[in-house]
Amino acid sequence: MEASPATRELEERFRRLALVREAAGVLQWDMAAVMPAGGAAARADQLAELREIAHAMLADRALGDLLARAEEEAASGALDEWRRANVREMRREWRHATAVPGDLVRRHSVAVSQCEIEWRERRAANDFAGLLPRLRLVLELTREVAGARASALGTSPYDALLDEYEPGGSSREIDRVFADVVAWLPDLVERAIERQARSPAPPPLAGPFPAEAQKRLAERVMSALGFDFAHGRLDTSHHPFCGGVPEDVRITTRWSESDFLRGLMAVVHETGHGLYERALPAAWRRQPVGGARGMSVHESQSLLVEMQLGRSRAFADFLAPLAAAAFGATGPAWSAASLHAHATRVARSLIRVDADEVTYPGHVILRYRLEKAMIAGDLDPAELPGAWRDGMRELVGAAPPDDRDGCLQDIHWYGGSWGYFPTYTLGAMTAAQLFDAARRALPDLPGAVARGDFAPLRAWLAENVHGLASLLPTQELLARATGRELDPATFRRHLETRYLGGDARAG
Amino acid sequence: MEASPATRELEERFRRLALVREAAGVLQWDMAAVMPAGGAAARADQLAELREIAHAMLADRALGDLLARAEEEAASGALDEWRRANVREMRREWRHATAVPGDLVRRHSVAVSQCEIEWRERRAANDFAGLLPRLRLVLELTREVAGARASALGTSPYDALLDEYEPGGSSREIDRVFADVVAWLPDLVERAIERQARSPAPPPLAGPFPAEAQKRLAERVMSALGFDFAHGRLDTSHHPFCGGVPEDVRITTRWSESDFLRGLMAVVHETGHGLYERALPAAWRRQPVGGARGMSVHESQSLLVEMQLGRSRAFADFLAPLAAAAFGATGPAWSAASLHAHATRVARSLIRVDADEVTYPGHVILRYRLEKAMIAGDLDPAELPGAWRDGMRELVGAAPPDDRDGCLQDIHWYGGSWGYFPTYTLGAMTAAQLFDAARRALPDLPGAVARGDFAPLRAWLAENVHGLASLLPTQELLARATGRELDPATFRRHLETRYLGGDARAG
Repeated sequence: MEASPATRELEERFRRLALVREAAGVLQWDMAAVMPAGGAAARADQLAELREIAHAMLADRALGDLLARAEEEAASGALDEWRRANVREMRREWRHATAVPGDLVRRHSVAVSQCEIEWRERRAANDFAGLLPRLRLVLELTREVAGARASALGTSPYDALLDEYEPGGSSREIDRVFADVVAWLPDLVERAIERQARSPAPPPLAGPFPAEAQKRLAERVMSALGFDFAHGRLDTSHHPFCGGVPEDVRITTRWSESDFLRGLMAVVHETGHGLYERALPAAWRRQPVGGARGMSVHESQSLLVEMQLGRSRAFADFLAPLAAAAFGATGPAWSAASLHAHATRVARSLIRVDADEVTYPGHVILRYRLEKAMIAGDLDPAELPGAWRDGMRELVGAAPPDDRDGCLQDIHWYGGSWGYFPTYTLGAMTAAQLFDAARRALPDLPGAVARGDFAPLRAWLAENVHGLASLLPTQELLARATGRELDPATFRRHLETRYLGGDARAG
Repeated sequence: MEASPATRELEERFRRLALVREAAGVLQWDMAAVMPAGGAAARADQLAELREIAHAMLADRALGDLLARAEEEAASGALDEWRRANVREMRREWRHATAVPGDLVRRHSVAVSQCEIEWRERRAANDFAGLLPRLRLVLELTREVAGARASALGTSPYDALLDEYEPGGSSREIDRVFADVVAWLPDLVERAIERQARSPAPPPLAGPFPAEAQKRLAERVMSALGFDFAHGRLDTSHHPFCGGVPEDVRITTRWSESDFLRGLMAVVHETGHGLYERALPAAWRRQPVGGARGMSVHESQSLLVEMQLGRSRAFADFLAPLAAAAFGATGPAWSAASLHAHATRVARSLIRVDADEVTYPGHVILRYRLEKAMIAGDLDPAELPGAWRDGMRELVGAAPPDDRDGCLQDIHWYGGSWGYFPTYTLGAMTAAQLFDAARRALPDLPGAVARGDFAPLRAWLAENVHGLASLLPTQELLARATGRELDPATFRRHLETRYLGGDARAG
């Protein structure tokens, strides 16, 4: 089916919009990976300009008219499945872009920038009270933004924020799933820690590990996982991330000289993101339907590769000889069993980014509860430190001695990302469900992994996730791949098998 | 004096235009310094989009109206000197942008891209005949572009091309200056080579020189020259260049393991460009008047630092102990006299980018003559190889055995840069004249240089060149700094002193 000239012009406009965003992506990668400190102010101006251009392209009245005509075409049955989905995704982007008045966008953007900058200092100084006025303003403006978006999307204010990261996501559904998790997770954490305490700790992996040797090992592992260095790079930055475009995937990590697993597992995680981007369908490149499905699916791909695959015993079989060779190490600490034990230690950490996969959901659920209450107006930011400590005790079993390691630890709220947190744990559960389905479809998967052959898994992901891009709503994508919508039972079974269960090789 | 709201809106539009071009600059640096090969096609699309956006901003009718009003304001005496000059520079940019019909811009751009890509293969295969059809098309469209610009600027077609790189430049003036050079240069080359042959060659600087040690030495030298690594970087690329923005200057070079002076002198050259960019007036940042004056002045800054300063005997006094320490080297080859002799060897090279400062103008004058004749329709591209050999014999005293090392060696014509070549030699002569004036103003300059103190020279350049940006036309800038307009006599005297003259310390 051939689309009308109007729809093709609409697609051309979105293609150009995507190019502007890609340019901004290069500037962001550069800022994180190579830019000297003195370039920050100029870079902020450059990025703001590209954002303003992209917003103007999307909010242009002519684009709105073309979009309405494309929807008529779609309704008349004149468009095929991908084009119809593309029009649906265009409308979603358009709604987000046009829902909020320009003046509010600017005031919100300024408040967020100022709060984020001040957060760096106040966090270091453990000074929540000093940051409170800034946080109040960010919250106030975020609630205004949420209200405007909610009107446009026909959702609750919180869901309107969530929708930016998780298209079609709903807090009612998240409440249901998280309530399920809260019912069994604290007990599972307790039992996992007890079980761990009953066995001897694995012998320490003694460093120091030179950064260069870590990088070579990481590149070796990335290549095995299918990362193509003709279409990507690995660099260093303060926080690991995956940027770039499908033809040029930019992964960053940081190296700890005392703990190589930390940097390596971050690389494995980001490689999961990168394999997704790289395998998106070229035919729909730069169209909304051709992009990744949303943050929970994106995070499912990184967590599938890091948690389901990368911390499995089979992966340890693959990794152990490579790691030993990379550092010229020998001895029992470098056996596959020992590496696996190191990669699956459980501890009640105060810090989310340091948390293992068992305690991580507790961190996320706490933040989800608190941000939802603040957006609803049920929690005053002044009460945040106390609510944080109470929640940590309940959900993680450890409370921070101060706000630096408490409610000041994450940049999200201070940087304006409200409604983002739940996607981490939705992603972890999605990963468990997808990996479970892949294992059923590929009976020899553990054997292939132990041999360093990741091609069968990659092919399964390409067919069931990557190649579908944003064709289907998230839950339909998941149901098509696994036979059912999101079900925390698979995630629970995964954790029980790996952290409580007898069969070590299965975990 | 306060400008009107209309003029301020005009300035705001140029500020936004500058931001888009800065973003494109980051993408270009990335492409040359870090991008994996597989990212090329996506990057070309991103850059084309940014270029199209910038062109649309400049060609916007409302901008044209604002510009006309600003010119009225300037004519009424309501604007100060900088604002008036800014309006003049805006009009120049606007003329270039709007002179050429969009359809011709696109056809020219496609022809140039295809020719440049094919040039890489044809050059390697020494196949000029195979590339000729592409070159013919590029020339045909370049002549069309030149004609359109010439109408808008009121110049000859060649001068309209030249004006893009050298604002206000004129081929009549270049003819005059180059005729002067041709009258004495071949004889000077001959005598310099004879004189060089009469002395023993300096002992060889024996490598290999590890790239890491070369980089550390280069960074040490850059810092001494005043390059600020909080506002810039040094990286590796296939061809050395200086990109970035004043707050974030990106220099690249390449390292030869057998010849460290090559990479180091490229760094010194690019540092000259970088110091200029960094010292442009912050008050006029992102306005046309606040940018560098043009390619001959830009090249004068790199050649002043590389040729006038970096290959002087005083600089060798500064460099010799640093270089010896960087490579753990000792012996007579590493004396200041020996380094200076290595840095000032003269040879009739077939390749422009390998040429020394004595033979370089011959290469440039040849290209200038040939491109001017082709634009005028007086030289058919099919005759280029023969004309090249004849010209090389006359101007450099050496003719290439094939086209690979002849008329296929430079990317410029095949990549669409016509009218660029003369700026190299205009820059060399401008550098000589500026350095001569600086030396008169700073009697202790050689002593300071030998001690590694470049602050006095930097201050002189900041006051007389860098800080003036595009306030004055090129010749006025030069006259203000040196007391006279461009005069090849100073360049000649410099070459005679360094390559023929008795006083070694002066050269």
